[in-house]
Amino acid sequence: MGDQDEVSEKGAGALTIPSLRWEEPPEGPVLVLLDQTRLPAEEVELVCTDVPALVQAIRTLAVRGAPLLGIAGAYGVALAAARGFDVEEAVEALAQARPTAVNLGYGVRRAAAAYRAAFAEGGAPAGAAAALAEARAVHAEDIEASTRMAQHGLALLGELLPGGGHRILTHCNTGALVSGGEGTALAVALAAHRSGELRRLWVDETRPLLQGARLTAYEAARTGMAYTVLSDGAAGSLFAGGEVDAVLIGADRIAADGSVANKVGSYPLAVLARYHHVPFVVVAPTSTVDLETEEGADIEVEQRPGQEVTEFSLPFVQGPGAESGTGIPVAPLGAQAYNPAFDVTPPELVTAIVTEAGVVSPVTRDGLTEVCSTSRWSKSRSGNGMMAE
Amino acid sequence: MGDQDEVSEKGAGALTIPSLRWEEPPEGPVLVLLDQTRLPAEEVELVCTDVPALVQAIRTLAVRGAPLLGIAGAYGVALAAARGFDVEEAVEALAQARPTAVNLGYGVRRAAAAYRAAFAEGGAPAGAAAALAEARAVHAEDIEASTRMAQHGLALLGELLPGGGHRILTHCNTGALVSGGEGTALAVALAAHRSGELRRLWVDETRPLLQGARLTAYEAARTGMAYTVLSDGAAGSLFAGGEVDAVLIGADRIAADGSVANKVGSYPLAVLARYHHVPFVVVAPTSTVDLETEEGADIEVEQRPGQEVTEFSLPFVQGPGAESGTGIPVAPLGAQAYNPAFDVTPPELVTAIVTEAGVVSPVTRDGLTEVCSTSRWSKSRSGNGMMAE
Repeated sequence: MGDQDEVSEKGAGALTIPSLRWEEPPEGPVLVLLDQTRLPAEEVELVCTDVPALVQAIRTLAVRGAPLLGIAGAYGVALAAARGFDVEEAVEALAQARPTAVNLGYGVRRAAAAYRAAFAEGGAPAGAAAALAEARAVHAEDIEASTRMAQHGLALLGELLPGGGHRILTHCNTGALVSGGEGTALAVALAAHRSGELRRLWVDETRPLLQGARLTAYEAARTGMAYTVLSDGAAGSLFAGGEVDAVLIGADRIAADGSVANKVGSYPLAVLARYHHVPFVVVAPTSTVDLETEEGADIEVEQRPGQEVTEFSLPFVQGPGAESGTGIPVAPLGAQAYNPAFDVTPPELVTAIVTEAGVVSPVTRDGLTEVCSTSRWSKSRSGNGMMAE
Repeated sequence: MGDQDEVSEKGAGALTIPSLRWEEPPEGPVLVLLDQTRLPAEEVELVCTDVPALVQAIRTLAVRGAPLLGIAGAYGVALAAARGFDVEEAVEALAQARPTAVNLGYGVRRAAAAYRAAFAEGGAPAGAAAALAEARAVHAEDIEASTRMAQHGLALLGELLPGGGHRILTHCNTGALVSGGEGTALAVALAAHRSGELRRLWVDETRPLLQGARLTAYEAARTGMAYTVLSDGAAGSLFAGGEVDAVLIGADRIAADGSVANKVGSYPLAVLARYHHVPFVVVAPTSTVDLETEEGADIEVEQRPGQEVTEFSLPFVQGPGAESGTGIPVAPLGAQAYNPAFDVTPPELVTAIVTEAGVVSPVTRDGLTEVCSTSRWSKSRSGNGMMAE
């Protein structure tokens, strides 16, 4: 329990409530999540007592963000083991809850491997203890990775943009809410802010679910960054006006060739950045790199329900005519929508990939493989890779 | 009255209610608008009995779209004249209601010129009759311009994309709702649909005010086009996947060098189109060309309230905590937003400009000047240009 509190406090970052924590009340262990669908209007906690509840929270994006999904997946396995549910069934359900973020499967596999090894020797109690220890390790490693990415990223910005006064454009949400620590791209922006080098954080609202306007703005406001929200389409005007010095985004999966799957809307920013000669920087832990996915075309992109586009459906919104749990129709009834959750940016449009183990620039297959092999978690990565076969 | 009914019917296009019509009930003439802020949920008419009501309708986008603003502006002058209000005051208020769409000033100036000339000879009744006749002429000309743009645009598509089966991406709303006729870009798509050459209309939702999801989808559904709505940021994935054959957009002002001001989010599409070697076609009447504005940098871009981005504020939406008339906060309270209504695409990114008087391609200052001089309204254009000085 001491361990867990320590992790929670470290991981709290600028949040009042940590995005995720493990608790052990007398009735049995639970995983407590900050429900991100209700931010910034309300800070509401979701208490998951079983894996189906956690899977539901992952699917509805109550818990989201590549690194945090890895942590949540690992704790999910620990939860199943601690409560005596079918662990293999939990592993399968969790790993498949969302297809694109590689970290989810990574966390699930690590906790599952620890569980299986300990179970074989000491039975269920040993398995449960090992799964929880591994989940805590994934969590702690992510906190450390955040810190290191922020350091590497800040140094890279200094090289790319000497003189400071950075005006950074970001997309989706990549801060403390998606991480055990302070996040990925937003952790770099926050480091720039703390060192007095951030002039402005441009926050793409990030349709359809507005993770930028809701979550990144929430984190930026809490940490005192100078920030401005914009419609995704307005980014073009900022580039044209010379008001963007760098783009910083996270990633949900990075293929072996350096192709980056990230929140839909990232690829247009990469094309705009190239057209305007602005650096386009991806910040992600090596756990987001999937060396078994050869190239961008091999990445499965999650298609989400069209209602996310054709209805305005934040959980805290209800309008006249909206049934409980459904959104307010925006498009005509029956309108079809194209709603990929992610897009894929090819490596030639990416200036650099910042990981906890160093910066890959230019982005090449060899550079990426090398940074992954020097990562302190390279052993558990390859080990899990084998098991996943 | 016979005249007016004819115009209304022609102008109705695929709409149940025309976007704008002049009526003369016993209590005095009125301008009746289809309130576009309430679409597609409700078809509600706004009855303007004076110019301040019309100016308010223009500012709140109840009536919008470059060609329709020209028509509305002309009828606004006619309304002031018919009801005995101060016509010069009305001219000023209308012309300044929104800064970017050149057509608004164009329509206002034409009706005002007709009013002044007739007033000098025959006094107020003659002035009022002349203003109304001129407004009806602007209206009728716009209907004809729509038809011609659709013909020229369809022919251009046939040249650019031999074989048909067009998959066309559009942004914002450019159909019967913005025009006396069937519109600009959407009129071309509709012509392709009627000739069996439209495979798919990709409809950018067009944040922040969702004119695509609300209005273009509404028009596409009514006319039976195969259409799909998407978040603006998802257009990148369509380009990357080779699923866009051409981009068709309208324009709010075209400078003499061929720079195109259009709804924010158009410029990123132009950059994406260039990167993917996809034609980027602008459809607008010559009344949208402003030869007195030298280049793109000279175009004043309207900055609209940040609440359009930080709050979800469609008029038919009210949520818990939302006061009457205000939106539902999406971003944290106090969040600052960057909300330009338009962006400017330089001529080198525009494949062609389709006008009622012909197609300009490549887009050059000379080509644009020439097409404007061959326009049947070139005389009234230059005449008004002089008067505006």
